[in-house]
Amino acid sequence: MATMRAFSLTEAIALLTRTPATLDALLRGLPNTWTRSNEGRTHDGKDTWSPFDIVGHLIVGERTDWMPRARIILEHGEARPFDPFDRFAQVKESQGKSLGQLLDEFASLRRENLAALHALNLQPEDLIRRGKHPELGVVTLSELLATWAVHDLTHLHQISRVTAHQYRDAVGPWSSYLGVLKCAGHSDP
Amino acid sequence: MATMRAFSLTEAIALLTRTPATLDALLRGLPNTWTRSNEGRTHDGKDTWSPFDIVGHLIVGERTDWMPRARIILEHGEARPFDPFDRFAQVKESQGKSLGQLLDEFASLRRENLAALHALNLQPEDLIRRGKHPELGVVTLSELLATWAVHDLTHLHQISRVTAHQYRDAVGPWSSYLGVLKCAGHSDP
Repeated sequence: MATMRAFSLTEAIALLTRTPATLDALLRGLPNTWTRSNEGRTHDGKDTWSPFDIVGHLIVGERTDWMPRARIILEHGEARPFDPFDRFAQVKESQGKSLGQLLDEFASLRRENLAALHALNLQPEDLIRRGKHPELGVVTLSELLATWAVHDLTHLHQISRVTAHQYRDAVGPWSSYLGVLKCAGHSDP
Repeated sequence: MATMRAFSLTEAIALLTRTPATLDALLRGLPNTWTRSNEGRTHDGKDTWSPFDIVGHLIVGERTDWMPRARIILEHGEARPFDPFDRFAQVKESQGKSLGQLLDEFASLRRENLAALHALNLQPEDLIRRGKHPELGVVTLSELLATWAVHDLTHLHQISRVTAHQYRDAVGPWSSYLGVLKCAGHSDP
Protein backbone atom coordinates (compact mmCIF):
# COMPACT_ATOMS: atom_id res chain seq x y z
CA MET A 1 0.00 0.00 0.00
CA ALA A 2 1.38 3.35 -0.99
CA THR A 3 -1.63 5.57 -0.51
CA MET A 4 -0.78 8.72 1.34
CA ARG A 5 -2.73 9.18 4.51
CA ALA A 6 -5.17 11.72 5.79
CA PHE A 7 -4.20 13.17 9.14
CA SER A 8 -5.19 11.18 12.22
CA LEU A 9 -4.64 12.71 15.63
CA THR A 10 -4.21 9.29 17.24
CA GLU A 11 -1.64 8.18 14.68
CA ALA A 12 0.31 11.44 14.86
CA ILE A 13 0.41 11.19 18.65
CA ALA A 14 1.66 7.59 18.37
CA LEU A 15 4.69 8.90 16.48
CA LEU A 16 5.23 12.00 18.62
CA THR A 17 5.16 9.87 21.77
CA ARG A 18 7.94 7.59 20.53
CA THR A 19 10.54 10.13 19.42
CA PRO A 20 12.17 10.86 22.81
CA ALA A 21 12.75 7.15 23.57
CA THR A 22 14.00 6.57 20.01
CA LEU A 23 16.60 9.33 20.28
CA ASP A 24 17.49 8.18 23.78
CA ALA A 25 18.11 4.61 22.61
CA LEU A 26 20.20 5.82 19.70
CA LEU A 27 22.24 8.61 21.28
CA ARG A 28 22.58 8.28 25.06
CA GLY A 29 26.10 7.19 25.96
CA LEU A 30 27.19 7.04 22.32
CA PRO A 31 30.80 8.25 21.85
CA ASN A 32 31.27 11.94 20.97
CA THR A 33 32.71 10.84 17.64
CA TRP A 34 29.14 10.22 16.60
CA THR A 35 27.18 12.72 18.65
CA ARG A 36 29.35 15.84 18.34
CA SER A 37 30.49 15.54 14.73
CA ASN A 38 28.67 17.23 11.88
CA GLU A 39 28.82 17.20 8.07
CA GLY A 40 31.26 20.09 7.78
CA ARG A 41 30.44 23.58 6.63
CA THR A 42 27.85 24.66 4.10
CA HIS A 43 28.94 26.44 0.92
CA ASP A 44 28.35 29.76 2.70
CA GLY A 45 30.59 28.82 5.62
CA LYS A 46 27.99 27.85 8.25
CA ASP A 47 28.50 24.83 10.47
CA THR A 48 26.08 21.99 9.78
CA TRP A 49 24.44 20.28 12.74
CA SER A 50 25.66 17.42 14.90
CA PRO A 51 23.20 15.06 16.65
CA PHE A 52 23.82 17.17 19.80
CA ASP A 53 22.75 20.33 17.92
CA ILE A 54 19.68 18.56 16.53
CA VAL A 55 18.40 17.47 19.95
CA GLY A 56 18.83 21.10 21.09
CA HIS A 57 16.78 22.24 18.08
CA LEU A 58 14.00 19.77 18.94
CA ILE A 59 13.90 21.22 22.48
CA VAL A 60 13.48 24.76 21.12
CA GLY A 61 10.60 23.48 18.96
CA GLU A 62 8.87 22.04 22.04
CA ARG A 63 9.23 25.35 23.86
CA THR A 64 8.39 27.85 21.16
CA ASP A 65 6.86 26.23 18.09
CA TRP A 66 4.29 23.46 18.12
CA MET A 67 1.96 23.90 21.06
CA PRO A 68 2.31 27.71 21.18
CA ARG A 69 1.25 27.81 17.52
CA ALA A 70 -1.64 25.40 18.13
CA ARG A 71 -2.88 27.76 20.83
CA ILE A 72 -2.55 30.78 18.53
CA ILE A 73 -4.73 29.01 15.95
CA LEU A 74 -7.35 28.10 18.53
CA GLU A 75 -7.39 31.52 20.19
CA HIS A 76 -6.78 33.93 17.31
CA GLY A 77 -7.25 32.03 14.04
CA GLU A 78 -5.75 33.86 11.08
CA ALA A 79 -5.90 37.20 12.87
CA ARG A 80 -2.54 36.69 14.59
CA PRO A 81 0.33 35.25 12.54
CA PHE A 82 2.67 32.84 14.34
CA ASP A 83 5.89 34.18 15.81
CA PRO A 84 8.79 33.27 13.51
CA PHE A 85 10.75 30.22 14.71
CA ASP A 86 14.40 30.75 15.62
CA ARG A 87 16.26 27.84 13.99
CA PHE A 88 19.51 28.74 15.71
CA ALA A 89 18.35 29.32 19.30
CA GLN A 90 19.83 25.98 20.39
CA VAL A 91 23.40 27.22 19.87
CA LYS A 92 23.01 29.38 22.97
CA GLU A 93 20.49 27.27 24.87
CA SER A 94 22.44 23.99 24.66
CA GLN A 95 25.71 25.56 25.77
CA GLY A 96 27.34 23.83 28.74
CA LYS A 97 24.78 21.02 28.79
CA SER A 98 25.50 17.34 28.22
CA LEU A 99 23.65 15.33 25.60
CA GLY A 100 22.10 13.30 28.45
CA GLN A 101 20.65 16.51 29.91
CA LEU A 102 19.26 17.53 26.53
CA LEU A 103 17.64 14.11 26.02
CA ASP A 104 16.02 14.36 29.47
CA GLU A 105 14.82 17.88 28.74
CA PHE A 106 13.38 16.90 25.37
CA ALA A 107 11.56 13.89 26.85
CA SER A 108 10.09 15.98 29.65
CA LEU A 109 8.93 18.83 27.38
CA ARG A 110 7.42 16.41 24.86
CA ARG A 111 5.52 14.65 27.66
CA GLU A 112 4.15 17.98 28.91
CA ASN A 113 3.19 19.09 25.41
CA LEU A 114 1.38 15.85 24.61
CA ALA A 115 -0.51 16.12 27.92
CA ALA A 116 -1.48 19.69 26.97
CA LEU A 117 -2.55 18.51 23.51
CA HIS A 118 -4.70 15.78 25.08
CA ALA A 119 -6.27 18.35 27.44
CA LEU A 120 -7.41 20.41 24.44
CA ASN A 121 -9.75 17.51 23.59
CA LEU A 122 -9.65 18.46 19.92
CA GLN A 123 -12.67 17.60 17.77
CA PRO A 124 -12.69 17.06 13.99
CA GLU A 125 -14.03 20.59 13.50
CA ASP A 126 -11.05 22.01 15.42
CA LEU A 127 -8.55 20.26 13.15
CA ILE A 128 -9.67 22.29 10.14
CA ARG A 129 -9.32 25.63 11.95
CA ARG A 130 -7.00 28.00 10.19
CA GLY A 131 -4.00 30.04 11.28
CA LYS A 132 -1.46 32.21 9.55
CA HIS A 133 2.18 31.24 9.07
CA PRO A 134 4.44 34.30 8.65
CA GLU A 135 5.90 32.93 5.40
CA LEU A 136 3.66 30.09 4.21
CA GLY A 137 0.33 31.88 4.65
CA VAL A 138 -2.83 30.04 5.64
CA VAL A 139 -2.38 26.66 7.32
CA THR A 140 -4.69 24.43 9.34
CA LEU A 141 -4.33 22.97 12.81
CA SER A 142 -4.13 19.44 11.37
CA GLU A 143 -1.29 20.54 9.04
CA LEU A 144 0.56 21.98 12.04
CA LEU A 145 0.20 18.75 14.02
CA ALA A 146 1.18 16.57 11.02
CA THR A 147 4.23 18.78 10.57
CA TRP A 148 5.19 18.35 14.23
CA ALA A 149 5.38 14.57 13.65
CA VAL A 150 7.15 14.78 10.28
CA HIS A 151 9.59 17.32 11.73
CA ASP A 152 10.68 14.62 14.21
CA LEU A 153 11.22 12.27 11.27
CA THR A 154 13.14 14.86 9.26
CA HIS A 155 15.60 15.16 12.13
CA LEU A 156 15.85 11.40 12.66
CA HIS A 157 16.65 11.23 8.95
CA GLN A 158 19.28 13.95 9.46
CA ILE A 159 20.82 12.26 12.53
CA SER A 160 21.23 8.98 10.64
CA ARG A 161 22.82 10.85 7.73
CA VAL A 162 25.20 12.94 9.87
CA THR A 163 26.28 9.86 11.82
CA ALA A 164 26.85 7.76 8.70
CA HIS A 165 28.86 10.60 7.16
CA GLN A 166 31.64 10.04 9.72
CA TYR A 167 32.33 6.61 8.19
CA ARG A 168 32.15 7.71 4.56
CA ASP A 169 35.78 6.68 4.08
CA ALA A 170 35.83 3.80 6.56
CA VAL A 171 33.33 1.71 4.56
CA GLY A 172 35.65 1.61 1.53
CA PRO A 173 34.05 0.42 -1.73
CA TRP A 174 30.73 -0.35 0.01
CA SER A 175 29.94 3.38 -0.11
CA SER A 176 28.37 2.81 -3.52
CA TYR A 177 25.72 0.54 -1.95
CA LEU A 178 24.88 2.69 1.07
CA GLY A 179 22.04 5.05 0.22
CA VAL A 180 22.50 7.23 3.29
CA LEU A 181 25.95 8.24 2.05
CA LYS A 182 24.44 9.58 -1.16
CA CYS A 183 22.04 11.84 0.73
CA ALA A 184 23.35 15.38 0.71
CA GLY A 185 20.50 16.68 2.84
CA HIS A 186 17.51 18.54 1.65
CA SER A 187 17.08 21.58 3.84
CA ASP A 188 19.09 24.23 5.67
CA PRO A 189 21.16 23.23 7.43
CA MET B 1 34.41 19.16 13.57
CA ALA B 2 33.72 17.60 10.24
CA THR B 3 36.72 15.36 9.85
CA MET B 4 35.76 11.91 8.68
CA ARG B 5 36.81 9.18 11.04
CA ALA B 6 39.06 6.22 10.84
CA PHE B 7 37.38 2.97 11.83
CA SER B 8 37.26 2.18 15.55
CA LEU B 9 35.95 -1.19 16.64
CA THR B 10 34.72 0.21 19.96
CA GLU B 11 32.86 3.05 18.27
CA ALA B 12 31.31 0.81 15.63
CA ILE B 13 30.14 -1.61 18.32
CA ALA B 14 28.62 1.33 20.26
CA LEU B 15 26.39 2.01 17.25
CA LEU B 16 25.64 -1.62 16.41
CA THR B 17 24.60 -2.26 20.01
CA ARG B 18 22.03 0.55 19.97
CA THR B 19 20.14 -0.22 16.77
CA PRO B 20 17.73 -2.89 18.10
CA ALA B 21 16.55 -0.67 20.99
CA THR B 22 16.28 2.32 18.65
CA LEU B 23 14.03 0.46 16.22
CA ASP B 24 12.08 -1.01 19.11
CA ALA B 25 11.41 2.42 20.61
CA LEU B 26 10.35 3.79 17.23
CA LEU B 27 8.29 0.92 15.82
CA ARG B 28 6.87 -1.40 18.48
CA GLY B 29 3.15 -0.83 18.86
CA LEU B 30 3.10 1.91 16.23
CA PRO B 31 -0.09 1.74 14.09
CA ASN B 32 0.14 -0.24 10.84
CA THR B 33 -0.45 3.00 8.95
CA TRP B 34 3.18 3.75 9.66
CA THR B 35 4.77 0.33 9.87
CA ARG B 36 3.12 -1.46 6.93
CA SER B 37 3.01 1.36 4.37
CA ASN B 38 5.73 1.90 1.81
CA GLU B 39 6.61 4.55 -0.78
CA GLY B 40 4.68 2.93 -3.64
CA ARG B 41 6.19 1.12 -6.57
CA THR B 42 9.45 1.79 -8.30
CA HIS B 43 9.50 2.81 -11.96
CA ASP B 44 9.94 -0.87 -12.88
CA GLY B 45 6.90 -1.93 -10.88
CA LYS B 46 8.54 -3.34 -7.74
CA ASP B 47 7.13 -2.63 -4.30
CA THR B 48 9.31 -0.39 -2.17
CA TRP B 49 9.86 -1.37 1.45
CA SER B 50 7.79 -0.65 4.54
CA PRO B 51 9.39 -0.44 8.02
CA PHE B 52 8.15 -4.04 8.52
CA ASP B 53 10.05 -5.14 5.40
CA ILE B 54 13.17 -3.27 6.52
CA VAL B 55 13.32 -4.99 9.92
CA GLY B 56 13.01 -8.32 8.08
CA HIS B 57 15.92 -7.31 5.84
CA LEU B 58 18.05 -6.44 8.88
CA ILE B 59 17.34 -9.92 10.30
CA VAL B 60 18.52 -11.57 7.07
CA GLY B 61 21.71 -9.51 7.30
CA GLU B 62 22.36 -10.77 10.83
CA ARG B 63 21.88 -14.36 9.68
CA THR B 64 23.71 -14.39 6.39
CA ASP B 65 25.82 -11.32 5.84
CA TRP B 66 27.97 -9.63 8.48
CA MET B 67 29.43 -12.23 10.80
CA PRO B 68 29.50 -15.00 8.16
CA ARG B 69 31.52 -12.68 5.93
CA ALA B 70 33.84 -11.69 8.80
CA ARG B 71 34.54 -15.40 9.34
CA ILE B 72 35.21 -15.94 5.62
CA ILE B 73 37.79 -13.13 5.70
CA LEU B 74 39.48 -14.55 8.80
CA GLU B 75 39.44 -18.14 7.56
CA HIS B 76 39.93 -17.83 3.81
CA GLY B 77 41.06 -14.27 3.04
CA GLU B 78 40.65 -13.39 -0.62
CA ALA B 79 40.68 -17.04 -1.69
CA ARG B 80 36.95 -17.48 -1.10
CA PRO B 81 34.62 -14.72 -2.27
CA PHE B 82 31.62 -13.93 -0.03
CA ASP B 83 28.29 -15.55 -0.86
CA PRO B 84 26.05 -12.99 -2.59
CA PHE B 85 23.51 -11.40 -0.24
CA ASP B 86 19.82 -11.98 -0.99
CA ARG B 87 18.20 -8.59 -0.61
CA PHE B 88 14.70 -10.02 -0.96
CA ALA B 89 14.89 -13.05 1.35
CA GLN B 90 12.80 -11.24 3.98
CA VAL B 91 9.67 -11.36 1.80
CA LYS B 92 9.42 -15.09 2.50
CA GLU B 93 11.08 -15.16 5.92
CA SER B 94 8.91 -12.45 7.50
CA GLN B 95 5.65 -13.98 6.27
CA GLY B 96 3.09 -14.58 9.01
CA LYS B 97 5.20 -12.87 11.67
CA SER B 98 4.25 -9.76 13.61
CA LEU B 99 6.50 -6.72 13.74
CA GLY B 100 6.96 -7.39 17.47
CA GLN B 101 8.31 -10.86 16.65
CA LEU B 102 10.70 -9.42 14.07
CA LEU B 103 11.98 -6.81 16.52
CA ASP B 104 12.61 -9.54 19.11
CA GLU B 105 14.36 -11.71 16.55
CA PHE B 106 16.55 -8.86 15.34
CA ALA B 107 17.54 -7.91 18.92
CA SER B 108 18.40 -11.49 19.77
CA LEU B 109 20.46 -12.12 16.61
CA ARG B 110 22.33 -8.82 16.99
CA ARG B 111 23.16 -9.69 20.61
CA GLU B 112 24.50 -13.10 19.55
CA ASN B 113 26.50 -11.61 16.70
CA LEU B 114 28.09 -8.94 18.87
CA ALA B 115 29.00 -11.62 21.43
CA ALA B 116 30.59 -13.64 18.63
CA LEU B 117 32.45 -10.55 17.39
CA HIS B 118 33.75 -9.91 20.90
CA ALA B 119 34.89 -13.53 21.18
CA LEU B 120 37.04 -13.09 18.05
CA ASN B 121 39.19 -10.70 20.12
CA LEU B 122 40.21 -8.83 16.97
CA GLN B 123 43.58 -7.11 16.94
CA PRO B 124 44.58 -4.13 14.77
CA GLU B 125 46.39 -6.47 12.38
CA ASP B 126 43.18 -8.47 11.88
CA LEU B 127 41.24 -5.37 10.87
CA ILE B 128 43.34 -4.89 7.76
CA ARG B 129 42.90 -8.47 6.60
CA ARG B 130 41.42 -8.72 3.13
CA GLY B 131 38.50 -10.58 1.65
CA LYS B 132 36.78 -10.66 -1.70
CA HIS B 133 33.35 -9.23 -2.36
CA PRO B 134 31.66 -10.88 -5.37
CA GLU B 135 31.00 -7.50 -7.03
CA LEU B 136 33.15 -4.91 -5.26
CA GLY B 137 36.38 -6.87 -5.26
CA VAL B 138 38.93 -6.59 -2.48
CA VAL B 139 37.66 -5.26 0.85
CA THR B 140 39.06 -5.30 4.38
CA LEU B 141 37.59 -6.59 7.62
CA SER B 142 37.41 -3.05 9.02
CA GLU B 143 35.47 -1.94 5.91
CA LEU B 144 33.03 -4.81 6.43
CA LEU B 145 32.48 -3.88 10.08
CA ALA B 146 32.12 -0.16 9.29
CA THR B 147 29.57 -1.09 6.61
CA TRP B 148 27.61 -3.17 9.11
CA ALA B 149 27.15 -0.03 11.27
CA VAL B 150 26.42 2.32 8.35
CA HIS B 151 23.97 -0.22 6.92
CA ASP B 152 21.95 0.14 10.15
CA LEU B 153 21.98 3.92 9.62
CA THR B 154 20.99 3.65 5.97
CA HIS B 155 17.90 1.74 7.02
CA LEU B 156 17.09 4.11 9.87
CA HIS B 157 17.33 6.86 7.26
CA GLN B 158 14.98 4.86 5.02
CA ILE B 159 12.47 4.14 7.82
CA SER B 160 12.24 7.84 8.69
CA ARG B 161 11.72 8.68 5.00
CA VAL B 162 9.10 5.97 4.36
CA THR B 163 7.20 6.98 7.48
CA ALA B 164 7.28 10.68 6.67
CA HIS B 165 6.08 9.93 3.13
CA GLN B 166 2.66 8.89 4.46
CA TYR B 167 2.04 12.49 5.59
CA ARG B 168 3.34 14.15 2.45
CA ASP B 169 -0.12 15.64 1.82
CA ALA B 170 -1.17 16.03 5.45
CA VAL B 171 1.53 18.62 6.23
CA GLY B 172 0.13 21.03 3.61
CA PRO B 173 2.41 23.94 2.69
CA TRP B 174 5.03 22.93 5.30
CA SER B 175 6.24 20.24 2.88
CA SER B 176 8.61 22.82 1.40
CA TYR B 177 10.46 23.06 4.74
CA LEU B 178 10.68 19.35 5.55
CA GLY B 179 13.88 17.91 4.14
CA VAL B 180 12.84 14.30 4.59
CA LEU B 181 9.99 14.80 2.10
CA LYS B 182 12.48 15.87 -0.55
CA CYS B 183 14.49 12.67 -0.17
CA ALA B 184 13.64 10.29 -2.97
CA GLY B 185 15.89 7.58 -1.65
CA HIS B 186 19.33 6.74 -2.87
CA SER B 187 19.48 3.00 -3.36
CA ASP B 188 17.35 0.06 -4.50
CA PRO B 189 14.75 -0.19 -3.26
